[in-house]
Amino acid sequence: MARIVMKFGGTSMAGIERIRNVATRVKREVEAGNEVAVVVSAMAGETDRLVGFCREASPLHDPREYDVVVAAGEQVTSGLLAIVLQAMGLPARSWLGWQLPIHTSDAHSSARILGIETEAIRASMAKGEVAVIPGFQGLAEGNRVTTLGRGGSDTSAVAVAAALRADRCDIYTDVDGVYTTDPRIVPRARKLERVTYEEMLELASVGAKVLQTRSVELAMKEKVRVQVLSSFNDAPGTFVVDEDEFGEEAVEHQLITGVAYNRNEAKITVVEVPDRPGAVGSLFGPLAEANVNVDMIVQNIAHDTGNTDVTFTVPRTDLPKSLDVLEKARGDIGYSRLITDDNVAKISVVGVGMRSHAGVAQTMFQALGSRGINIQAITTSEIKVSVLIAEEYTELAVRVLHTAYGLDAA
Amino acid sequence: MARIVMKFGGTSMAGIERIRNVATRVKREVEAGNEVAVVVSAMAGETDRLVGFCREASPLHDPREYDVVVAAGEQVTSGLLAIVLQAMGLPARSWLGWQLPIHTSDAHSSARILGIETEAIRASMAKGEVAVIPGFQGLAEGNRVTTLGRGGSDTSAVAVAAALRADRCDIYTDVDGVYTTDPRIVPRARKLERVTYEEMLELASVGAKVLQTRSVELAMKEKVRVQVLSSFNDAPGTFVVDEDEFGEEAVEHQLITGVAYNRNEAKITVVEVPDRPGAVGSLFGPLAEANVNVDMIVQNIAHDTGNTDVTFTVPRTDLPKSLDVLEKARGDIGYSRLITDDNVAKISVVGVGMRSHAGVAQTMFQALGSRGINIQAITTSEIKVSVLIAEEYTELAVRVLHTAYGLDAA
Repeated sequence: MARIVMKFGGTSMAGIERIRNVATRVKREVEAGNEVAVVVSAMAGETDRLVGFCREASPLHDPREYDVVVAAGEQVTSGLLAIVLQAMGLPARSWLGWQLPIHTSDAHSSARILGIETEAIRASMAKGEVAVIPGFQGLAEGNRVTTLGRGGSDTSAVAVAAALRADRCDIYTDVDGVYTTDPRIVPRARKLERVTYEEMLELASVGAKVLQTRSVELAMKEKVRVQVLSSFNDAPGTFVVDEDEFGEEAVEHQLITGVAYNRNEAKITVVEVPDRPGAVGSLFGPLAEANVNVDMIVQNIAHDTGNTDVTFTVPRTDLPKSLDVLEKARGDIGYSRLITDDNVAKISVVGVGMRSHAGVAQTMFQALGSRGINIQAITTSEIKVSVLIAEEYTELAVRVLHTAYGLDAA
Repeated sequence: MARIVMKFGGTSMAGIERIRNVATRVKREVEAGNEVAVVVSAMAGETDRLVGFCREASPLHDPREYDVVVAAGEQVTSGLLAIVLQAMGLPARSWLGWQLPIHTSDAHSSARILGIETEAIRASMAKGEVAVIPGFQGLAEGNRVTTLGRGGSDTSAVAVAAALRADRCDIYTDVDGVYTTDPRIVPRARKLERVTYEEMLELASVGAKVLQTRSVELAMKEKVRVQVLSSFNDAPGTFVVDEDEFGEEAVEHQLITGVAYNRNEAKITVVEVPDRPGAVGSLFGPLAEANVNVDMIVQNIAHDTGNTDVTFTVPRTDLPKSLDVLEKARGDIGYSRLITDDNVAKISVVGVGMRSHAGVAQTMFQALGSRGINIQAITTSEIKVSVLIAEEYTELAVRVLHTAYGLDAA
């Protein structure tokens, strides 16, 4: 007998017929002898509807009241799933965030889970009841409703799995696993059987939107075995697990696990920054204060003039704010002008295998160069190499790299 | 300074523009120096949507989970009203049923309020915050969500007013007060300035659907001064108060306060019931067990045969169930046959003034008789006379009686 947490997203919960489909999957796990807790999202579209009400009510709304409003979506689906499970003959009950409770910080609308009380729910599950828990919501000190931010239900599921010491956390979504790259761009992309937490984090952060980043970080920290799979078919999904689980097969593990892309960046070049200590600090300090997440940074060698050019990327939506900040700091920094380009894309190759292999970056540069794709910036981590290119080459670059690293399905 | 409770129904809360209108009314009361608690319904149509989900999920749903689902509607509007009030510069916060808490019985989906903890909310209101409370919902022992049954928000409002010892409970609805009769039938119907609790109860129970009956009973028990008024205009409403408040004006108080009608009855005649002790018990016992609410009862004098006919009315929706019960009990009762008629209406005249005046019933019979309207059954209480007539005469009867008792507006 295993104890498992199953999580279903908004698409899987959109209407009673789909909730019945969810219940059928839950029933299958219960009949296989498992203790099951289910974490649910709101019906697809419902959270947007509720957020829309809050925005219409006031653009600057109290996040504590926003949380009261938007938490209602998951409350509804958790009650409905409990009803449908009961109708199928499975004992079940809902446990709202404040009933368990799921303790969170008081950072309303983007709260962090601090701990989950599981005594009551364990007793209920031990009696054979399915526990149905609304994702996304919690309770802060002072007895106020909180929510975890968009996509927070994945994090709720992993946190519940950690608190229950579950054997597995199955995250059902509208894709059936993690692929070597976006199958819409590369039809020969393959579904991965397993990825490590680290790889998943790098893939998630560069735009493979399968799991919320925070949920993967939490799974890594708590060593929760996560499986990503589809609620619309019965294909096995992708396990997101600790590197140790790869064991002796590690030798067979691919050098590169996947190729990801991200079109949501914009490039800023600050021209003729004085080449003296502290100059870079006067540049990035104000951006950090304005909560702009600077990603790739390239500093060219100094000109003979004693000046240097600094190039970096920011999220595309933060471009106007970044320019505003830099204009205001112009006197402190002392640059001559700003050049911006938002027709850029970041392409990344990810894989724990590259730690022990040289030449990964070289393969990338050669493959892109052979197609005439110019590289505008490069960043690397232990298990990732990213390059910035002109946006129009995105699909070509992804296809070329997928082939170059031997990822194409046979 | 007064402490007042304001209650807004679903039509008043249907969408952000209407919620802004509600907030404007709240602001006016706050600026007049009052401490204000607001009780809100779900947006019009929302409770029906949520109930529909539950029914689709399972016709026989667990009422505990039903309550979790349907309580979400009021949660949403209470958060939204708090946001809108804040945007207007009024400090405000929502207090959900489980946060106060509003303690109720565990009769899920039709719970009764047992008590409301007001310490936190009083402190908040004393600081100048508007308290926004979702109607309809509460908390049972065991920390489970409950709801009060349809229309329960009126009861929530009166209970909050009683717990806060409020000076007034203003119930905003889509009519602007209590009228001498239905203005759609009698254009010269007048809005009443005041009615007593007892009159309101009789008017409510005979079909004037302005306030939920339970809320009036509670107001009477707790002596809460209720005002019914419209959220769509600024006309003064109708006060529902203790008879004592009429004081010396009592002499001027109308003999009859209003004329009500109810088309939701059906008549059953049980023919040739043995005229012996216990016969009536064997007739109405099984109906009571089946939860059929028998209203008017007429027993004719015994025939020479030793048999009697018994006629009574039941809610029209209960007619099939009632016939089923009576068929099954035929052996015990020993009647010869059943005659049913659902083309009937009950017309009632109500007024505390009739206690001290003879001839009220006589005026009614004469007025109806003069128009050829046959009376099929009669019941009376201290402050009400009701007659059963053929349904097709409903409007005529109401108009004739409204004139006969001098209620027509000048």
